[in-house]
Amino acid sequence: ELAAVNMGLTIKEAIDRVRGLTRNVETIHNIFVVDNENRLVGILPLDKFILAGPDEMVANIMDKAEICATTNIDQEEVANIFKKYNLVTLPVVDEARRLMGRITIDDVVDVIEEEASEDIMRMAGMDAEELIYESKALKASKLRVPWLLTNLLGGLATGYLLWLFKVTLKDVLALVTFIPVITGMGGNVGIQSSSLMVRGLATGHVDLLNLKKILLKEFKVGVILGTICGSGAGITALLWHKNPMIGIVVGVSMITAMTVAASMGTLIPAFFKLIKVDPAIASGPFVTTANDITGILIYLGTATLFLKFFYNFHA
Amino acid sequence: ELAAVNMGLTIKEAIDRVRGLTRNVETIHNIFVVDNENRLVGILPLDKFILAGPDEMVANIMDKAEICATTNIDQEEVANIFKKYNLVTLPVVDEARRLMGRITIDDVVDVIEEEASEDIMRMAGMDAEELIYESKALKASKLRVPWLLTNLLGGLATGYLLWLFKVTLKDVLALVTFIPVITGMGGNVGIQSSSLMVRGLATGHVDLLNLKKILLKEFKVGVILGTICGSGAGITALLWHKNPMIGIVVGVSMITAMTVAASMGTLIPAFFKLIKVDPAIASGPFVTTANDITGILIYLGTATLFLKFFYNFHA
Repeated sequence: ELAAVNMGLTIKEAIDRVRGLTRNVETIHNIFVVDNENRLVGILPLDKFILAGPDEMVANIMDKAEICATTNIDQEEVANIFKKYNLVTLPVVDEARRLMGRITIDDVVDVIEEEASEDIMRMAGMDAEELIYESKALKASKLRVPWLLTNLLGGLATGYLLWLFKVTLKDVLALVTFIPVITGMGGNVGIQSSSLMVRGLATGHVDLLNLKKILLKEFKVGVILGTICGSGAGITALLWHKNPMIGIVVGVSMITAMTVAASMGTLIPAFFKLIKVDPAIASGPFVTTANDITGILIYLGTATLFLKFFYNFHA
Repeated sequence: ELAAVNMGLTIKEAIDRVRGLTRNVETIHNIFVVDNENRLVGILPLDKFILAGPDEMVANIMDKAEICATTNIDQEEVANIFKKYNLVTLPVVDEARRLMGRITIDDVVDVIEEEASEDIMRMAGMDAEELIYESKALKASKLRVPWLLTNLLGGLATGYLLWLFKVTLKDVLALVTFIPVITGMGGNVGIQSSSLMVRGLATGHVDLLNLKKILLKEFKVGVILGTICGSGAGITALLWHKNPMIGIVVGVSMITAMTVAASMGTLIPAFFKLIKVDPAIASGPFVTTANDITGILIYLGTATLFLKFFYNFHA
């Protein structure tokens, strides 16, 4: 039973009314105030209720019920209302504003935690269900397989692209040794940018209106981190294979691949948000595959150009 | 100012006392009850306060103050107490149990959301700071660079391992085309297992006491998913390069690599939890690098063995 009183009562009458409620009412945080048609008109916080004189009218003491939820509201929206207004309870009304129930903050705490779990699991191509119900191996595999098959196709496409460069690879086999580090570092910096976007969009810290600014920042981050990691990898390549061409190719393509990856890691979640697909669920395989493909193209494209130039030069 | 009353008062006296509080007291959810030395003895929920008769003693109506926090408590622990007992406020006491203040649920909501953001960002090698303060590119790069350099070293080590197999690669260059998909799929399944562990440990859905059971489940998941993806990749390899050896090597090593990756993705976060290092911060680079290295070793190791067998067979 809800703790609701009619707006026409005095405080003393309201106290008697609340006393008269059956004992199976849950903890009371606020008294809801309704009119004769059970439509919500106000909210009476318990501290105001206690501090008011017994003959004052409920209607004069109550706060206006400005914030309330309708029965068809989304749970993420409810959580945002609680956070925005620091609420403990939120009344729920139907289309005619008739009081139907209440949501309390402890329900919201669970929702906030669930939504975060959902994001984390979806970013890895899983379902939050797996966390809550201890699922069997077969069930878990079924939930994870679509995402993995998408990535498998991406991986096979990357392999096909590699094969287009087989002449270059046959000429300088040492180039093979840097394929994992180039695609890997692009993947890492791309995951950083996309995690920032996915979580930022979920918590409201990132807004599509600021996209240009964020993209510019992530682009710069890509250049800075690419230059640091690319120099390290390039110098290693140079010293290891005693071949300045490999050193330059590795360095230049890591800088380029990491910059492209940071930009795509920012744009892909923004694009999915725009077309109203959950960025967390969509970004994972797309960011990974896109970065693998562009990484390979940049690395072996650069190597092929350099080789051509190098051979022509000596011819 | 805190809404606290002495345990020796009657309800009527307590109401007068609460009325007398200066108006800059925040929303009252509970009245705290203290003894003459200001030590916390009880809590009086406002609804009990209203429903009690004016002459009843506070000490007879109040709930015993069994749950309270000390001043040096960790914020994650506070959040867990609120969730466990569905609290709205929690009194804070010093070592002598003197009432020092209170924590309300709206602070806790922020903490829960922050902790989730921290996990997501740390798993990608970032700091939650980046989300909250709109950081400049240079600042963001500085925060991200340690994790990326760790992964760079891992990537270079992977490249070095690749080079150890250069004879095999020179013999069958087509093997190169499946390097990205083998390490990539190992990485994907490893991230799934480690995300499940990291989030499960944070929310309490996963417990180290169940580790054996979870490990067995993830191992099975690795076998199932590895068999599905490995068959797909193996058949593609066979049809593409018209070489049954490559097909078998790709299939067998993808099954093995994905099973190993699922197991390591489970064990690495558990290990960090055990040695009291945040699994979210530590698992990222370790899981990625470990899976790249074992993926390469399994793939090219298998290929080398098959090549040897194949050549000996025909010799």
